[in-house]
Amino acid sequence: MTSHWEDFYATHLPPNCFEDNRSLLKEFCDRHYKLKSNIVLVTSGGTTVPLEHNTVRFVDNFSAGNRGSASAEYFLEHGYAVIFMHRTKSLEPFSRHFTGQQLLDMLELHEEGMSTTITVKPDSVDVLAPVLDKYKNAQETHRMLYITFTSVVDYMWLLRAACESLAPFERNAVLFLAAAVSDFYVPQDEMPTHKIQSGHGAPTISLQLVPKMLAPLVSLWVPHAYVVSFKLETDEALLIAKSRESLNKYKHKLVIANILQTRKNRVVFVTPSSNYEIVLTKDQALTGLEIEEPIVADVVRRHQDYSREPEQQTHQ
Amino acid sequence: MTSHWEDFYATHLPPNCFEDNRSLLKEFCDRHYKLKSNIVLVTSGGTTVPLEHNTVRFVDNFSAGNRGSASAEYFLEHGYAVIFMHRTKSLEPFSRHFTGQQLLDMLELHEEGMSTTITVKPDSVDVLAPVLDKYKNAQETHRMLYITFTSVVDYMWLLRAACESLAPFERNAVLFLAAAVSDFYVPQDEMPTHKIQSGHGAPTISLQLVPKMLAPLVSLWVPHAYVVSFKLETDEALLIAKSRESLNKYKHKLVIANILQTRKNRVVFVTPSSNYEIVLTKDQALTGLEIEEPIVADVVRRHQDYSREPEQQTHQ
Repeated sequence: MTSHWEDFYATHLPPNCFEDNRSLLKEFCDRHYKLKSNIVLVTSGGTTVPLEHNTVRFVDNFSAGNRGSASAEYFLEHGYAVIFMHRTKSLEPFSRHFTGQQLLDMLELHEEGMSTTITVKPDSVDVLAPVLDKYKNAQETHRMLYITFTSVVDYMWLLRAACESLAPFERNAVLFLAAAVSDFYVPQDEMPTHKIQSGHGAPTISLQLVPKMLAPLVSLWVPHAYVVSFKLETDEALLIAKSRESLNKYKHKLVIANILQTRKNRVVFVTPSSNYEIVLTKDQALTGLEIEEPIVADVVRRHQDYSREPEQQTHQ
Repeated sequence: MTSHWEDFYATHLPPNCFEDNRSLLKEFCDRHYKLKSNIVLVTSGGTTVPLEHNTVRFVDNFSAGNRGSASAEYFLEHGYAVIFMHRTKSLEPFSRHFTGQQLLDMLELHEEGMSTTITVKPDSVDVLAPVLDKYKNAQETHRMLYITFTSVVDYMWLLRAACESLAPFERNAVLFLAAAVSDFYVPQDEMPTHKIQSGHGAPTISLQLVPKMLAPLVSLWVPHAYVVSFKLETDEALLIAKSRESLNKYKHKLVIANILQTRKNRVVFVTPSSNYEIVLTKDQALTGLEIEEPIVADVVRRHQDYSREPEQQTHQ
């Protein structure tokens, strides 16, 4: 198995700007290490699997980035430094609250003589001000680093680079792996150079399994970190069994399991010793509470307990 | 061939909210028909091909919606009513200029006693004011209708519904089909219900050809409209030949051909009698000119010439 993931890196080149991103990660982590911050890597959005080298078509994983972008905000509120590693153009913290033309709709133009000013309509200030305040605060305190990926290959390279920089934090680091990472890919040497032509009939796409990076991540890259993975299924019957299987295999701390159709109102926390639900009631949902708020609160509580445990307990 | 596209509609259900969208299209078109407006349908963004009924994975076509959303703005400037039919969350006219957190970065919070106001920073007003002005104008004059699709099946149903409402405009309608529509799909009866499991090894995805809707669209649905299709290739050697092949087959008015890597600076207009390039020079690109401005100006000029031709010429 070890050679499998090593092969993946050996046969797939790092993305453009990889070294720039690696420097950003290192600088951010070094700074927060000196500040003795707690730190979290939040991954968010889906990865693509290109079907052509000059990519016109790709296989994608369903994910707008709601879970990751909301969770990143709540980790900030708990005092964590946040590496927000997300799919290009997926939702981002803060701006996620105002998508499409919603912000433009809040603005008013005022022309007075030669001078033009633009203000936010008074009845939109109540909605926008608290979000804007938190956004400015995150900017000013430099507690959020944005890193983007597109393909599953980009993601794998950036994930490993982030782990390199996070390793020194040992138990003070959380990995909150909410991105929807493809299980399958088309190996580079089987990929056509140009757009697949429809004139020759419909193609058949042969996919290969992506190696499970959770294995080296937990055992080698960040062996002391608090690692949380996600399991998204559409079939309730498989959910807990598959989550527990994953925990047994990779030996990380927590799987947050959810069903596609109900993921905004219910998740199951599966730990090595228990499982329990976090559910949002209808009333809570109506007041605007997001399930990511109690999810992150619970992860933070578990992480704090873990980081205070005497070290030897992890080797039991 | 006819039965092929009819089969597609017979075996694929219309999307949710289809009847609502059909009403919106009809109301918008009826109103602008009475106003004797020129009208354009701009399609934009890529369609998805779900691989599972409960969709976790899908095949997507590369398209952020730049071409379509920019072109929609320029058609408005030429006085057209615009149906902007776009992929959910792809770029939209006006807001496309300020993506991610750019708008948040332009805002300033002011707290004075108990009162909070939010204004746009003075140095951002110059950039934002002209866009905001055009946006407000489009809103107030009700000249832009937004319709969204996700899958290729949604797109096909909405395209036909739009054509139904556009048919009465005859030569005063333009169809500017810039969306990146999948050539392939997984038929509903071959699609698994649940997320494909990776435990059984990597799957093979068998795709079928999507019927070419341009055939019934040109010959039956809007036979008098000015229909423009797009051809995106990665291989220059195929570009013109494939565009001319498409024109000969479907008998529409214009193919706008472009190469993935150079599409922001160069397109080729392929008409039944000629082909010529529209190129953006480096200096023009540096001043912020977008290639969609001359593209739309040229399409509008051709459409105006066409709409003034005596009717019998089309049957020559």
